Amino acid sequence: MATLVELIAKKRDGGSHDPGEIQRLIQALISGELADYQMSAWLMATFLRGLEPRETLELTDAMLGSGVVLDLSDVPGVKVDKHSTGGVGDKISLPLAPIVAACGVPVPMVSGRGLGHTGGTLDKLESIPGFRVDLSIADFRRIVREIGTCLIGQTKEIAPADKRIYALRDVTATVESIPLITASILSKKLAEGIDALVLDVKVGRGAFMKDLDRARALARSLVDVASRGGKGVTALLTDMDHPLGFAIGNALEAAESIDVLRGGGPRDILELTLDLAAEMLVLGKVEADVEGGRRRAQQAIDTGAAAEVLRKLIAAQHGDPRVVDDTSLLPRAKVVQTITAPRAGFVVDVDPLALGYAGVELGAGRTRADQAVDPAVGLVLRAPKGTEVRAGDPLIDVHASDEASFARVSARVASAFRIDDARVARGPLVFEALRGSGSSAP
Amino acid sequence: MATLVELIAKKRDGGSHDPGEIQRLIQALISGELADYQMSAWLMATFLRGLEPRETLELTDAMLGSGVVLDLSDVPGVKVDKHSTGGVGDKISLPLAPIVAACGVPVPMVSGRGLGHTGGTLDKLESIPGFRVDLSIADFRRIVREIGTCLIGQTKEIAPADKRIYALRDVTATVESIPLITASILSKKLAEGIDALVLDVKVGRGAFMKDLDRARALARSLVDVASRGGKGVTALLTDMDHPLGFAIGNALEAAESIDVLRGGGPRDILELTLDLAAEMLVLGKVEADVEGGRRRAQQAIDTGAAAEVLRKLIAAQHGDPRVVDDTSLLPRAKVVQTITAPRAGFVVDVDPLALGYAGVELGAGRTRADQAVDPAVGLVLRAPKGTEVRAGDPLIDVHASDEASFARVSARVASAFRIDDARVARGPLVFEALRGSGSSAP
Repeated sequence: MATLVELIAKKRDGGSHDPGEIQRLIQALISGELADYQMSAWLMATFLRGLEPRETLELTDAMLGSGVVLDLSDVPGVKVDKHSTGGVGDKISLPLAPIVAACGVPVPMVSGRGLGHTGGTLDKLESIPGFRVDLSIADFRRIVREIGTCLIGQTKEIAPADKRIYALRDVTATVESIPLITASILSKKLAEGIDALVLDVKVGRGAFMKDLDRARALARSLVDVASRGGKGVTALLTDMDHPLGFAIGNALEAAESIDVLRGGGPRDILELTLDLAAEMLVLGKVEADVEGGRRRAQQAIDTGAAAEVLRKLIAAQHGDPRVVDDTSLLPRAKVVQTITAPRAGFVVDVDPLALGYAGVELGAGRTRADQAVDPAVGLVLRAPKGTEVRAGDPLIDVHASDEASFARVSARVASAFRIDDARVARGPLVFEALRGSGSSAP
Repeated sequence: MATLVELIAKKRDGGSHDPGEIQRLIQALISGELADYQMSAWLMATFLRGLEPRETLELTDAMLGSGVVLDLSDVPGVKVDKHSTGGVGDKISLPLAPIVAACGVPVPMVSGRGLGHTGGTLDKLESIPGFRVDLSIADFRRIVREIGTCLIGQTKEIAPADKRIYALRDVTATVESIPLITASILSKKLAEGIDALVLDVKVGRGAFMKDLDRARALARSLVDVASRGGKGVTALLTDMDHPLGFAIGNALEAAESIDVLRGGGPRDILELTLDLAAEMLVLGKVEADVEGGRRRAQQAIDTGAAAEVLRKLIAAQHGDPRVVDDTSLLPRAKVVQTITAPRAGFVVDVDPLALGYAGVELGAGRTRADQAVDPAVGLVLRAPKGTEVRAGDPLIDVHASDEASFARVSARVASAFRIDDARVARGPLVFEALRGSGSSAP
């Protein structure tokens, strides 16, 4: 049998691992037989040489198998989750999970926190007074069964090998590898005990993948590996060259999500939520096609069924459900200042990255995993791309903890906007859909 | 300034490091700011992307500068050393250093121990009763000044970064990288305070480099980087597809080396010793060309001047100098058994690797750095390639610690020989010489 060093050499030389070899590497990492410095050499070799889909699936399974895999077999129905690769203003999970659950498809969702310019679902949920994301697995299972959805944070028991490997990748310049990203995402998601998965792969300046080719390659890899793993899967390639919706910041995004469930909110949030919900309802086998899925999702909003699921979910997770009917109960920033247009014209560009980092600087996000966030602060876009403005018209509101904090970010926020004479329109929100070959049998 | 992770990413993406960046990485490794797992990612990226000669020189200088650099400026003359990339039966340093010193060129030599199938100069020297290689740097400097040469082991103070990096490379499949090998060899050798260096780059089954192209690439890299570092340098590409000389094993090789200094010994050892000595005498500026160098080296043997240097050297390093005149004072194995030819014909092949590993199995070498060696055991080749033999003629003597040990290796030893009907001759011993552009000013 090959030694562990020979396995590293095999990938170094561009070879493909035999079945079982990647399992051996991951098990050796967990047991301590393979040191971190050996894993990081394999990670760099893998970054540069790649993995075949078969190898990526084995890596996914090995990381998945390093921890607990939830058994939701006592929850009836096809369990479906959504994962987004992250963006600025991406609060889609908050309206989406209640809508899909209201339509009869269980959504067990294990989410992450914000890091860098991208926000995290957990931080947004925790802006709801009392809301807790650190539930036990027993409570998680019970709430999914009773309400149809539950949103918690990743526990130590889920895919610990992924956590260890991710920490190494972060400091060894091996993050941006499509097979490694694929295995990391899927190992955590498949640990939820789901039958199918919808992926929102974002592309653009505010996304992890800046160009369509790379984003498409990641989407293909995710769909291919999840299908090989026997899961129903669809990936949508969606625009992240402009912030999603108007709000950036935790309580502000929670409020905007509630607006959508009450029939309002920004058009792009509603559209993307309906598109993703439709895919989930098809994978969840309650609708035959996405047109039917969109209609049913819209009905769940119109009838108030989705808002009712959100009320129950918030209550079950120890939060104050009255926020669904009165978003003024959410934390509010002390200072709200408006940045205005310096000239007349059309807003031809709003840079999501500049606004994402301004949000971090205001305290809405974090640059290190151990930092706390301020739930109240953030930004509310008032003139998205395509808006015609006069000089002095509002472009964006800055919700800051104090005047000094506003003063620190104002130039950066203003620089995110470009105003010009020619009228432009925002491009499409969804570029492509990639559908897997697997069925989503529960 | 780029972060350390950005420096790893730069090499990962095939970029060249700016001046100072490799120094920063090595200093960060030493200070603890850069973790082993980050260094191993950089090593794998470097293995796959390479280093330019300018970068390799910076790595060499950084590793060199991580420890003590000997100052031999009080030793008159151009100080020249030799380094071999290692082989089976390669005891050249033992006759070479006294010859070159006898010709007036100081040879400060820091050597290594055997590992795997290749022997080490220190183990061979220590087979001489009383001989010590763990001298202080002050003693080393004094002995070089008084006798013209001294042979010691690598101290902890010399190039500690190389030691740390080599330990990582060994377990992360990043050993066989020409720039990393170059920096490792040169950082240790240049720490000796030498002005010039002759490199014996071995090629063939018994060598680290199995084919001529790879060996030539290593030789070019060594010559290029040492020249850029301002050192006089010559590399010889020499044959290691057959054992060097007859003896394999520590005391046996010491005895064979002494034979050469007394005007006897195997022809190939004498020839290669004279070739390397000639290059060192030219670099050491006591001869204008290699023909003159060979003549003067031969004279040092013929007049007994070289043997006299060896006597003084052994005495200065606490050994028994009488071995030079009576090699029976060296340790001798209890069991000597001869393996004979199974058929008549010509010895058409003697596999150095098989004999090297048989030597390790007898106890002459080690597979782990912390193992002890038996100075007495080994092999003495009696029918090198090209020898005509009758059935039953001796092929090789096995010097073993006991009959069981002989029995364990005899099949492996016998399998190293191939006898056939067609007469063959050994090829050339030296394939090519590569000379550096630098002068060797002291």
